[in-house]
This record gives sequence, structure tokens and C-alpha cells, in this order.
Amino acid sequence: MSIDRGSLVVNPNILEMEYAVRGPIPQRAAELKKQGRKIIFANIGNPQALGQVPLSYLRQVLSLVEDPAKIDRERQLKSLFEDSPHTDLQEADFISEDLLGLSEEILAASGTGMGAYTESKGMLFIREAIADFIDQRDGVGPQHGVPADAESIFLTSGASQGVYFVVDLLIADENDGIMIPIPQYPLYSAAIKKAGGAQVNYYPDEEAGWVFGREVLVDAYQKALQAGVKVKAIVVINPGNPTGAVLDAESTREVIRFAAENQLMIIADEVYQENVYGGEFLSFAKVLGKEQVPLASLHSISKGFLGECGHRGGYLEMRNPPLIEGTSLDFIDLLNKQASVSLCSSTPGQVLTYLMVKPPGENTPTYENYQAEKEQILGELHQKALMIRAAFKEMEGVDCFGKTGALYLFPRLGKLPAGTTDFDYCMALLEETGLCTVNGSGFGQKPGTQHLRVAFLPSKALLEEVLPAWIDFHQQYLAG
Amino acid sequence: MSIDRGSLVVNPNILEMEYAVRGPIPQRAAELKKQGRKIIFANIGNPQALGQVPLSYLRQVLSLVEDPAKIDRERQLKSLFEDSPHTDLQEADFISEDLLGLSEEILAASGTGMGAYTESKGMLFIREAIADFIDQRDGVGPQHGVPADAESIFLTSGASQGVYFVVDLLIADENDGIMIPIPQYPLYSAAIKKAGGAQVNYYPDEEAGWVFGREVLVDAYQKALQAGVKVKAIVVINPGNPTGAVLDAESTREVIRFAAENQLMIIADEVYQENVYGGEFLSFAKVLGKEQVPLASLHSISKGFLGECGHRGGYLEMRNPPLIEGTSLDFIDLLNKQASVSLCSSTPGQVLTYLMVKPPGENTPTYENYQAEKEQILGELHQKALMIRAAFKEMEGVDCFGKTGALYLFPRLGKLPAGTTDFDYCMALLEETGLCTVNGSGFGQKPGTQHLRVAFLPSKALLEEVLPAWIDFHQQYLAG
Repeated sequence: MSIDRGSLVVNPNILEMEYAVRGPIPQRAAELKKQGRKIIFANIGNPQALGQVPLSYLRQVLSLVEDPAKIDRERQLKSLFEDSPHTDLQEADFISEDLLGLSEEILAASGTGMGAYTESKGMLFIREAIADFIDQRDGVGPQHGVPADAESIFLTSGASQGVYFVVDLLIADENDGIMIPIPQYPLYSAAIKKAGGAQVNYYPDEEAGWVFGREVLVDAYQKALQAGVKVKAIVVINPGNPTGAVLDAESTREVIRFAAENQLMIIADEVYQENVYGGEFLSFAKVLGKEQVPLASLHSISKGFLGECGHRGGYLEMRNPPLIEGTSLDFIDLLNKQASVSLCSSTPGQVLTYLMVKPPGENTPTYENYQAEKEQILGELHQKALMIRAAFKEMEGVDCFGKTGALYLFPRLGKLPAGTTDFDYCMALLEETGLCTVNGSGFGQKPGTQHLRVAFLPSKALLEEVLPAWIDFHQQYLAG
Repeated sequence: MSIDRGSLVVNPNILEMEYAVRGPIPQRAAELKKQGRKIIFANIGNPQALGQVPLSYLRQVLSLVEDPAKIDRERQLKSLFEDSPHTDLQEADFISEDLLGLSEEILAASGTGMGAYTESKGMLFIREAIADFIDQRDGVGPQHGVPADAESIFLTSGASQGVYFVVDLLIADENDGIMIPIPQYPLYSAAIKKAGGAQVNYYPDEEAGWVFGREVLVDAYQKALQAGVKVKAIVVINPGNPTGAVLDAESTREVIRFAAENQLMIIADEVYQENVYGGEFLSFAKVLGKEQVPLASLHSISKGFLGECGHRGGYLEMRNPPLIEGTSLDFIDLLNKQASVSLCSSTPGQVLTYLMVKPPGENTPTYENYQAEKEQILGELHQKALMIRAAFKEMEGVDCFGKTGALYLFPRLGKLPAGTTDFDYCMALLEETGLCTVNGSGFGQKPGTQHLRVAFLPSKALLEEVLPAWIDFHQQYLAG
């Protein structure tokens, strides 16, 4: 049945917007899976879809606050069990008292439980806990640093919503631009495109491990200026997505100096701050200290060792909010207005964010198990990254620069046959081996280079199976 | 410390956007509460914040899928209890087998549990259940109606996100407009303003119970046309917010005819479809039948008798998606693109939406309790609406037209002292009695009229306390 339903003119910005992480290659992968093919989804940072087990601490508490009648019942059950322990159940099957108490505290602090809209910014006690977490992480003390302020923190639906809030506000017309690193996580290009602004590319130095100096920033800025673009902000993703690269203190300071000179806001995507595998994460807030540069930094429950993507939790912290021309308002007031119209982020996402910033204390019954689960997840991620790196060494023309961070490797494909692109390569790799990756062009890359992004999330057993197949595929592909 | 942080030019659309439901009066109420005043928040449809108890069915299942280890444990505990029942626990303290099985089914159908990103549209089995729900609700059969299609359904973060998806797409430039009823839920005016489009007002007839005929629509459309506005869609909120009015079949048919003639999309906000208190709800999809008019209809877990606002769940169903000019795409493809960049809505919101559309079957152990909880909530809501209506009869110049629907009453304040507005009245009412309402001007109203919106959510005990105070306040306010 094909009926003419007219021909609608829609928002051209949405029409032109692209998002490769869920683009043609993953779509083809989904088709193949429906046909019964075994597909390994390494196209997206979605750990629990690839078997990562959720942290018990998070889920036990979330489960209790969703059904509060079970808190007291748990206590009664425990004494029932202690009176007649001749079952298959063990003490470890019961939730420890610290988590029962914590669940009660969360419900009491929320005031209205899990079913009510919260303040638009999110529940106050959670924002206060986030502020404490930031201060502790950054070593803020009486003599050092600037304490975080709960009123400058917004709980968001993943980090994505925070990015939209900021970008939508900054882009006042089509001449406003935002600097983003190339390659970048395509949320940024999509958000800028949707807001109708100009994307201003800067190019970290791949062979130096994706670091960058002042000249890279100045060059991009000058070119934008010449094209009539007013640059409003600079995005830094640290650790990098898709590159996995970890920024050093000097590059961070360089960005801050550059932003200060040119009156830019820094948008610091720090969602992979726990994914550094031996390296050190240094937050923008910490390096910024008392400098009056506007900083919007983002964090999420989807990454790190939590991997709670489906719960869509995260936060945005704003420092040194600019004043808004022609008003008595500042940037936070307008973020708040945007948050109000969406009412609030989801309460489960908020509670998991709380648990992320408030892990079990060292002397609690939960501590040991929590640490064990955490170390197991991070240790495996590192090992899997090393396995894939080792495979690259067997592939002609493939180089992978930079430290290992985030959940991704972004190897350069140096010797693809003439006339073929990384898109072709990734599509063929999928068809041949069932491994779903994303072509480098989906993230942006220096003209003339080719890459792919692979998430190091599939299990070791799966990698042991697919990596030799990838190496074979690579050899054949290069042979044409 | 007052430091010059520059003066930023931001997106003027966001600067101008307004959202009275969380505007100055509720903000003042929050201040007063902090100072220790007792405040009754009747400004927003947030039932659980005012003591409505969540449905056991929803929360028990959600709690189990969040911590799957507890499903089998529940079975073991039950047999432990049966072996030694000499405790304070009773059989009713254990979760019945139908819900344990349902929780397992949900986890199995999800494929990846609660922690993974889902498909951008939401989990397929949930979209299929929604399609079944729509067909059952609308009596779709082999001879009647058009079945809903799971691929045309998007799970969203509350209904708000669905509204943004549609409005953002429809507004291609500042001459594109969307018709909205006045008064309206200010999400619509805010979304249109944010997208940079034109708001085209139409005026239902208050004294006729907020119904409207063809001439009201034609009048608004013609005025827009004369102003150079291209109308793309018409919003209908049924049952109404803020009016509570319930649309009859004839008005619904009128909207469909009008939309067909003028090639408009219908945006049907049907989030209050369970809140009709004796009247009958008739969906746009049902009345539309086989007519080829584009229809985007919205539903939510926040309203009805669920009141699960904090979990941010809902869905958007699209029928007869228009084709997009200059492409081979249709409207659903572009909704999907937008959903992709936000990754997905939260899994708890998705699961609660599933449970909303799939209540316990008649022969299950859970059925009776579920029905009792549902009837208790809806019965109380109706009684509270009647209590407030009775109070209006004691207030000079106050008239409240239309059937009782949704969660709100929207009385006209006919005799405010000259020079005072409904905003002044609501602010004074708050200061005097602690009752927080929203001024009619926050929703839009016919020039020269004054109203307020009050949610009939506070407990009967609270209403018994505050209604006499309101009547006294009213008398004094009118006396000047």
C-alpha cells in the first residue's frame, strides 16, 4: 500500500545530522543478527550488552529503594534464616545492614521516594554528594582549589543531555561555533548541527599520542575567525573518545590559557575518568583552580566500571558561569530553565549517580566485595585492550597511537587498497567476521587518513575467537 | 565576590522560553518551605510527592529486574517460610509466582538486562506490547481500525521528550507554526519557542465546557496565514491540561477533518487517558481509523493512576508518517535519528511503561490487589476534585466549566479587584494559605479573563484544612 502522504519540509539541521555509532554499519549488523548470524557488537560503549555484570552494590540498593517494603522485610528474613539455617541459602544471600540503612537514608533524603518529579537540577542531597566527590577527587582543601557547589550541578539523563543543554544555549545563530577535536564523539557534531551552529575542527597530533599544543588550537581558531565564525567554546574529551588518549597536565593548562585569552567556555567531557588503566586522570576543574574560565564538565554512570548505560544517569558541573547579555541572569539560570521544561532526569539514574560518587566506605561489610568487582572489571578491560593491541601488530599498516584509555582503540589503517575507505573496510570486516566496529570517518579524521574504532568490551573468549579471523581478513583485504 | 565574567550572547529562543509550572509562584513556595512554612504543592501533577502510593505490581517487578539474583532467592525464601512460619512475616509478604515469572520473562526478552543501552526506539517486546495495548483499547479487529505497529512506536523519557522530537523536526524555519489550544500545557509553547517557530493559538469555548467547533480552528488558521505563518501541525490535549476537559467524538472528528483539509499533523497529547472519572476517553487513533492523516500520539507513566513521574517513561506512536521532501525518508526515520543521538530512554521507564500497558490478567494472584489499588487512587482523585469544586461554589465570581478530567481544575476568577491579575491572586493565596497553584496566564487564556490551575492531588485531610482558608482568603481578596 503506497499512498502519497505529501512531502514535508523538515528542520534541515536534523536532516543533515549524523551519528555513526548507530549508523549504517551497526544497522547492517542488526540485520545480520536477525538473520541468525553471530555478531560481536564492538561499535558502542555498552558494557552490559557484552556481558559485564552490574555492581552488586548499585543494584541491591536501587532494588530496595524501588520497593521500600523489602527493607524491613530483609531484616525479618535474616532473623528467620538465622533461626533455621537448614536451607540452600547462605548468609551472603542476604543484604547487609549497611545497605539496608543506606537505602532508608536515600528514601528519607529524597523526601518523596522514587516516583515523584525531583527538583529540576536533581535531588539536593545527591548534588551535595557529587560536590563532595569532586572536591575529594581533586584534593580541594582550605589552601587549594575551589570547592564545588551543589547549586552548580545538574543531574542529567546520561551525559548527552548535559551536552545538549550547553550547546543549545551557546549557539545564538549560525555564525556561532564550537571547537571540537578531530576525531570526536559524534554527539558533539550532531548537537552543534542540530543547534544550527558551526563546527570548528582542531587536530590533535596522532603520532604524538593525540596530544596537542597551542598552535593546533590557534590555527583552528584563526581559520574560524576568517570564515566569519564566532567561537564560543572548546570541547575536550579526556580520556578521549574515540582515541582513548589521556591528556597530560600541560595540554590541559594550554587549553585553559587558550580559553581564557579568547573568552571561551571549556566543555570537558570526562565520562571516562575511571578508564585510565594505570595512567592518571587530571580533571579540568582541578587544573583550573581559581582561574575564572567558564567550565562545563560532564560525568556519567554509563562508563567507568559501572557501565550502567541503560539507566541514563550523569551530571553536568558548571564553574564560572558567564553572565548573559541584556539580563541579570547567568548561564546556570538558563541551564536551570532548560532542565525545568524537561521536569527532571530519572530517579533511578539519579540514585545510581549518587552511588557512583559515594562508594562503600572502607570499614563497611560491602567494601571488600565492591573493590573486588571493580578491580575485576577494570583489570579485564585493560587485558582485552592489550589483546587487541597485540593483534594490531600482526596487521600490516595498522598503527595504534596514544595511551590506553576510555573503552576504545582507534587504530590507523595505513595501507587500505586504493579506492577503498575505512567504511568499506569496516563493512567487509562485519560481513566476514561478525565483528561490528565503526569507521573512522564517522568520528572525523585528518583528510587522507583512515581508521576504525573498536570497543574493547567483548569477552576474552570472544576476542580469542575473532581476533585471528580479523588478522586473516585484514591480510586478504589488503591483498584486494 | 563579584567578578566580571563577560557578557555572553545566548540562544534568544531559550532566553524567551517560559514554563510557569515551575515558575515564580512555585519558586516562592519552595523558598517559604525552606523557611519552615507548611506548603501544599498543587501546582504540578506530581502525585507521589503528595502521598500517592506507588502500585505494588509495578514496583515489585521493577525491584526484581534491577537485582535478578533476588528472583530465585524469593522462591527459596518462600519455602523457608513455609517450613517454619513462626515469624511476624505472612504469606502476603512474599512476591507471588506470577510476578517472579514475569520478571524473568522481562529480563529474558530484554536480552541484556537493565544496564545496557536498548535500541533507540526502546526494547522491541515493549513496543509490541504497546501496540497490542493500543489495539485492545481502540477495539481494533479484522473489520475495524488499523493495527498499531511496533516500529512506529518510540519509548521516550516521559511524554515531554516525544513532544520535543516532533516539534524540533516540524519547525524548519521561523515561519513554521504549530496550532495549540489556549489555555495549554506550557511544554508546547516552550518547545515551539525553543525550536524558533510560531505559536498559533486557537480558543476552545470555556462556557461550553472547553469544546470547540470548526470555526475556532479556521479562525486561528486564517489569522496565521495572513501573518505569513505556515501551519504544520495542531496540538490537542485530551483530557485537557490545564482545563481537565474531555473531548467528545464530534470535536475529535472535526480536528481530523480540519487537519486533512490543511495537510496538518495532529499531535494528540493523551497522557491523561485514564483520568476521566466516569466519562469516556476516545483516542485520536480510534477515531482516525483508516484516514491518512499524520498522527503523533503521546502517553506517559507519570499520570493516570500510576503517577510514576520520577521514572520518566512514556511513548510516542506515529501513524501515517509524512514523506520528507527531497529524500527517500519518512517522519519515523527522522524521529529515529533523533532518538539515536540520545541513545535510548531509561530502562526503568521502559519497563514501567511495559507494566502500564500489560496489567495483571484477571486470573492471576496479583489481579485483585492491583484493581483495588487502582480503584482506590482513581476514586480518591474524583472525590478530591468534587471537594474543590464544592469550595468554588462558595467563592464569589468563581466558575469552573467542563467535565472533570486529568488531574486539574481550571476555574475562572471572574471578579478580581481592578488592577490585580491572577498572578497576584495566586501569589497572595500562597502567602496567605500555603496553597501553591499556578496563575492562568502561565497557560495562556483569552484576553480579559483570569484563571488558576489547581491539581486535585493533596490528601483529603489537607484539602479539608486548606479549602475553608481559601474561601476566606477569596472573600478578603475580593474586598480589596
